[in-house]
Amino acid sequence: MRVLSLEDIDALLTMPDCIQVLEQAYREFGNGKAANIPRQDMITPRSGGRVHGFKTMSGSLPREQVVALRINSDIIHWPMIDGQLRREKIPAAPGGNWVGLILLFSTATGELLAILPDGVIQRMRVAATGGLGIKYLAKENAATMALLGSGWQAGSAAMAACAVRPLRQIRVFSPNPENRARFAAEMMAKLGVEVVPADSAQAACQGADIVSCATNALGTVFNVNWLEPGMHFVCVRHHEIDPEVYRRADRVVIHTKRGTPEHYIIDDDGRYPELKEGYDKLDLSSYPELRDLIAGKVASRGSDAEVTIFSNNLGLGLQFAAVGKHVLDLAKQQGKGRELPAGWFVQNVHP
Amino acid sequence: MRVLSLEDIDALLTMPDCIQVLEQAYREFGNGKAANIPRQDMITPRSGGRVHGFKTMSGSLPREQVVALRINSDIIHWPMIDGQLRREKIPAAPGGNWVGLILLFSTATGELLAILPDGVIQRMRVAATGGLGIKYLAKENAATMALLGSGWQAGSAAMAACAVRPLRQIRVFSPNPENRARFAAEMMAKLGVEVVPADSAQAACQGADIVSCATNALGTVFNVNWLEPGMHFVCVRHHEIDPEVYRRADRVVIHTKRGTPEHYIIDDDGRYPELKEGYDKLDLSSYPELRDLIAGKVASRGSDAEVTIFSNNLGLGLQFAAVGKHVLDLAKQQGKGRELPAGWFVQNVHP
Repeated sequence: MRVLSLEDIDALLTMPDCIQVLEQAYREFGNGKAANIPRQDMITPRSGGRVHGFKTMSGSLPREQVVALRINSDIIHWPMIDGQLRREKIPAAPGGNWVGLILLFSTATGELLAILPDGVIQRMRVAATGGLGIKYLAKENAATMALLGSGWQAGSAAMAACAVRPLRQIRVFSPNPENRARFAAEMMAKLGVEVVPADSAQAACQGADIVSCATNALGTVFNVNWLEPGMHFVCVRHHEIDPEVYRRADRVVIHTKRGTPEHYIIDDDGRYPELKEGYDKLDLSSYPELRDLIAGKVASRGSDAEVTIFSNNLGLGLQFAAVGKHVLDLAKQQGKGRELPAGWFVQNVHP
Repeated sequence: MRVLSLEDIDALLTMPDCIQVLEQAYREFGNGKAANIPRQDMITPRSGGRVHGFKTMSGSLPREQVVALRINSDIIHWPMIDGQLRREKIPAAPGGNWVGLILLFSTATGELLAILPDGVIQRMRVAATGGLGIKYLAKENAATMALLGSGWQAGSAAMAACAVRPLRQIRVFSPNPENRARFAAEMMAKLGVEVVPADSAQAACQGADIVSCATNALGTVFNVNWLEPGMHFVCVRHHEIDPEVYRRADRVVIHTKRGTPEHYIIDDDGRYPELKEGYDKLDLSSYPELRDLIAGKVASRGSDAEVTIFSNNLGLGLQFAAVGKHVLDLAKQQGKGRELPAGWFVQNVHP
């Protein structure tokens, strides 16, 4: 049983590989050759307006003989920052850290193969999935991208976009001017593409072929008045884009119809109005899923004038199966990680 | 992060303690002070009529600041044994073993506190929960018990019954005469109660105050024609008892209304007719749950003549939270188990 660190995973996983293994997994899933147990959140109240959030999702990828279970065990609160209500995770675990784990199991033997921290893979899978949306839906000749957000997730969103389209310019906006300037400088050095800070979200979006939202805002960050023909949108949380944009779009593809996690809440007395993160504001059930697009069951973009959206709402356990197994295979090849005795995680009885 | 072995747990957990911590957890749950994510099964087909079954359930017990996630990763097939279709788990994990794990997380810090094998706790929690049914529903002066089944689960069912009623005799039946004779001798020595093998299920049940079913049969093992006034029934799988007994019973209490796991099946082409283990044959939704009984929200037995049933159908993650945390506390006090660095299971980023 192998235990990997964030550093191990960071050194092993590239964006192009991540996009490739996910594309293959979605094709399998779209053809009925994979399974996924949707996300479930169990909320336990704590003192001081905090809650413990326990989030799980699972997926099975028979082609790789692997099942993944991803677990987040978070201490959460909701501060108001820059006039926006935000959902924040408090690093309350030993050493001032957070807790997110991926467990990989063999479908051939049942054994626990590995425990991985989820941080790097989470960042990469969100962006790579958005990248697949760009690959299948954005204009072939897309050259400019507006990036709303300058955090960790925004960086990987830029990497993913560059992996699937030959971008010439990325314009980044986030409320803090220092953050966006620092981000632009860092990403330009990393990607070899022009990355410029924009003074407003609107300025960033003007004339952009792709609009990528990577914020943790609980409200809308793209206004429908900024909409132009040919734009492709990618967002993690669908409410980042004005609902009117969905209505006007020619094609909308979503990550999963199951847009809301199932919630199990202790003492649910209405104290946590933002718990569901605005997931309920739009009915996603009529849109096709990414697996349908990648398996060729629905058409991709029809013309350069179309407005398209890929709304990458909730994570799927299947993503962690595909990317986790890929990382584990590389770790074994390269001798990375700690190997613990398999005997500690099996038993000679069965229930 | 502490890793315990089956031997550690076996040495730490007693049946009376197990019953006590579960009783407290059900009282909390019945009063809205605990949460539970129901069991979900993901089925991946393998060659040779086998499948990989991935089963999860979770529970939160705020009183103990703990969340448990129980995972089973099994290679399953369905052989015909003694004329009954059985569901069997193949020990395909390293060393010819099975895989069942309990992960405990702190709701105060989010951290992974422990990984435990689930075998001993599974055996004990099933029996202890049945014991709670006996405590609240069987006749006060119950003296004799019929035990159908002579396996591992039957042994703990006998222990649990003896912990809550001063039994004088247990009559055991299972199809193989050697098994029941061996079981009777072993349990008599262990419990200090008369344990006798019976020649038939009917002979075991005649005149019994309690009928306890602990088989892995997929069919009925108690026939309605054997029913007598005052009997209390306890079973793990509700179909072990003839549906007519449920209709004639004065009180039926179930473990959870969610009588069927949610199934996620790859290639579900009808090849696995017994996958759902007969759960669908009876509608349990009208019966109160054990938590309601223990929290005093529904009445227990009204007279010695009543027929009562506790049908302990599906496991609850909450049971593993309550019993797992109790075991972990004892392990820490007594220095049992392996302590791994907490830093291996946290991360300095968060998704």
